[in-house]
Amino acid sequence: MFSSDTYAARRAALADNMSGLVVVLGNAHAPMNYVDNVYAFRQDGSFLYYVGLDEPGLALGLDADSGEATLYGHEPTMDDVIWEGPLASMGERAAHAGIAATAPPEALADAIRAAQRAGREVHVLPPYRGEHSLRLGRLLGLAPEAVEPSAALIDAVIAQRLVKTGEEVAEIEKAVEVAVHMHETAMRMAQPGRTEHEIAAAMQAVASGAGGFTSFPLIVTKRGETLHNHASNAVLEAGDLLLHDGGGAAPSRYVSDLTRVSPVGGTFSDRQRQVLNTVLAAQEASLAMCAPGVAFREVHDEACRVLASGLADMGLMRGDPAEAVAAGAHALFMPHGLGHAMGLDVHDMEALGEDRVGYGDAATRSTQFGTSNLRFGRPLAAGHVMTVEPGCYFIGALVDKWRAEGTHADFLNFDEIQRWVGLGGVRIEDDIVITDDGHRVLGPELAKTPEAIEAVVQGR
Amino acid sequence: MFSSDTYAARRAALADNMSGLVVVLGNAHAPMNYVDNVYAFRQDGSFLYYVGLDEPGLALGLDADSGEATLYGHEPTMDDVIWEGPLASMGERAAHAGIAATAPPEALADAIRAAQRAGREVHVLPPYRGEHSLRLGRLLGLAPEAVEPSAALIDAVIAQRLVKTGEEVAEIEKAVEVAVHMHETAMRMAQPGRTEHEIAAAMQAVASGAGGFTSFPLIVTKRGETLHNHASNAVLEAGDLLLHDGGGAAPSRYVSDLTRVSPVGGTFSDRQRQVLNTVLAAQEASLAMCAPGVAFREVHDEACRVLASGLADMGLMRGDPAEAVAAGAHALFMPHGLGHAMGLDVHDMEALGEDRVGYGDAATRSTQFGTSNLRFGRPLAAGHVMTVEPGCYFIGALVDKWRAEGTHADFLNFDEIQRWVGLGGVRIEDDIVITDDGHRVLGPELAKTPEAIEAVVQGR
Repeated sequence: MFSSDTYAARRAALADNMSGLVVVLGNAHAPMNYVDNVYAFRQDGSFLYYVGLDEPGLALGLDADSGEATLYGHEPTMDDVIWEGPLASMGERAAHAGIAATAPPEALADAIRAAQRAGREVHVLPPYRGEHSLRLGRLLGLAPEAVEPSAALIDAVIAQRLVKTGEEVAEIEKAVEVAVHMHETAMRMAQPGRTEHEIAAAMQAVASGAGGFTSFPLIVTKRGETLHNHASNAVLEAGDLLLHDGGGAAPSRYVSDLTRVSPVGGTFSDRQRQVLNTVLAAQEASLAMCAPGVAFREVHDEACRVLASGLADMGLMRGDPAEAVAAGAHALFMPHGLGHAMGLDVHDMEALGEDRVGYGDAATRSTQFGTSNLRFGRPLAAGHVMTVEPGCYFIGALVDKWRAEGTHADFLNFDEIQRWVGLGGVRIEDDIVITDDGHRVLGPELAKTPEAIEAVVQGR
Repeated sequence: MFSSDTYAARRAALADNMSGLVVVLGNAHAPMNYVDNVYAFRQDGSFLYYVGLDEPGLALGLDADSGEATLYGHEPTMDDVIWEGPLASMGERAAHAGIAATAPPEALADAIRAAQRAGREVHVLPPYRGEHSLRLGRLLGLAPEAVEPSAALIDAVIAQRLVKTGEEVAEIEKAVEVAVHMHETAMRMAQPGRTEHEIAAAMQAVASGAGGFTSFPLIVTKRGETLHNHASNAVLEAGDLLLHDGGGAAPSRYVSDLTRVSPVGGTFSDRQRQVLNTVLAAQEASLAMCAPGVAFREVHDEACRVLASGLADMGLMRGDPAEAVAAGAHALFMPHGLGHAMGLDVHDMEALGEDRVGYGDAATRSTQFGTSNLRFGRPLAAGHVMTVEPGCYFIGALVDKWRAEGTHADFLNFDEIQRWVGLGGVRIEDDIVITDDGHRVLGPELAKTPEAIEAVVQGR
């Protein structure tokens, strides 16, 4: 947690932009297969931002007119102490967050009814867990599906959380350092005979050892052409290409997200190296553009053009790269976007609506296959923290479909592409902060070129 | 998964005991901090029992009158293939479960409305995730809180799932074997300088390497007096007592649950050894009683009496052990129950109601502090799979409270007890199946006596 001043200042800034009563629910425990068997607790990002407390069952009420905040939650009981150990009182918790008033959870419904009766607006954020929907319905006296998230609150929160302060960037950088250790661990373990699971477990151990969690379920796979492939019991063989995508968290819960590929056994094949170098060129061109005022959609398009150009050199695409990208032909190889905002959530604030966060009123999302998956298209500004993660994949089912349909046949050399299916997928991802005059890659350096990665895998 | 015949037979037996339409919802993905960032998938236990498919977004409709089953779910799309890889069609999934008919999820609401219009009963199980409540409300045309789980269905499912067949016991035994490897790993790592997190991560790696998950979040702690303490970054020191409680899963998703304590550095202190031997005596006496027809509540009480007797020998309790247990004085040291049913859920079927599963109409739950936490009190029967897990804890806050209040002062020697606070907690847990004439401890042997545990910790 930051000092209580940070949270008080964030709430004051939010109150300045709003009127009425603002309610931000913290998360409850999430049941696996029955109520008392719960997943590892994960706090809501906006609650963490305004309150900082990483415990279940809390809620914030912020009177935007008076600026007064109340923390709602249960006092710990002796039973809680027996099963969960010593717990802070509500007063102690609130003090950490710079909040003077506490109240039991039931009092929140009373506060909402009082505000409604006084004709004041009550603002809530969109629910993304069923439990949230039910609770908001009960609090607002509505059917769960009738609850209307507040557009004003959503936009005010996005405006605040999107631009990171120096103390936030420092926390994100700690999380990136954790991720660097996770990926170096994966590289060193990319040896024949290891399983994907073993490597994922070792990466997970680095993340928990650092006092955090993985920012999302780890992707550790030699079938990297499946974008969200999780670890399996597949045994690595020399020559396989292992893709590892994952991030850690600082104890403050700011997160990171990096991707690398490792050559199992220590040496990239010629084809693997060609694809990796093409993806690296796309990332280099993207990074060079990242600066305040530049629309991230333009950066994405440039990455795709460099990728298409490289694939043309390899005989997989043809024609003018710019025309190919305008038509959407490159999306056979890169059906995802170049990156996304990152902070307390790995896709930062995605719970508030991907379009509001990534586009707002400043840009419009493409409907073209591939680029439609770009989560962030708006102009960059100083303090934005972004991932930059071009990739190139050989997805057999998609190649078969496009070939059969003749999709973008002018730009795609299907005969040659067919010969590359089986290579898997390559993605290179770093995390950056936009500075006043450009950008800075966050965290310690992590091997990225074929030569540097090979050196780590080989233990040199 | 078992062969499709097993699931067909289970559904046929259920249909024989019911009439109307039975609906069993599978689980959906559970969001962490936004919809697309999800926890590792965990299927509902009853859905696994009747269908066996370990994938999100499915539901079973079983016409109990005709015996016909329908599997509801989406066909995979090309987008699913790109992000998640090759997926089985609905027809292929249904075939694995021995189900002939498939339909899209929307069709389930139509089937329910048709049954309701025909005046037939529609049976659903209790929801334990918010998402389930919302979905059941939509399906039944009711407010979520107005959904009434079917008592007849709950009892029919409990009757079936409580008694394990040979093929189920074999799967549970595989899960116990995974747990044995997890705990041997923890014992070997119980050395000064290690952190709780490192040991938990290594146990987790064993569980995922076996193709499963941990049956619940691991408990790995040198503060074992907190019953559900999870791993922290605490560094182990020589002389600490490390408690490790956790289980794994077979690929079929049957689970296990074992607990041991390890002496950090390799040798139990005199006091640790005394407590461990007392807990072992309680477990031995309990196991000796486990046989068909014996109420588990009686077994629990006997374990408590042996514990109280041992604590009297150590100068911590006084008076007649049977009277002390009848009064509830022993619960200062063991405020939990002796064990619980186990199968596809680690607290088997707890989602259906702990009292219905563990007591039903055959027994009544105690309201006395401590024994009120006994999850299972009914008579044992052949095929029941149970945990047997006595423990002894020194909970400072509880000792202070009882001492200040003079609670059970006739039976408790508070001056002496105070000197033991800080020792932590000891629990020994094994998994058993009730046989026709007694019981059998499941899985390979795991060190349990002080001498045997010390040998593993010392690498002998």
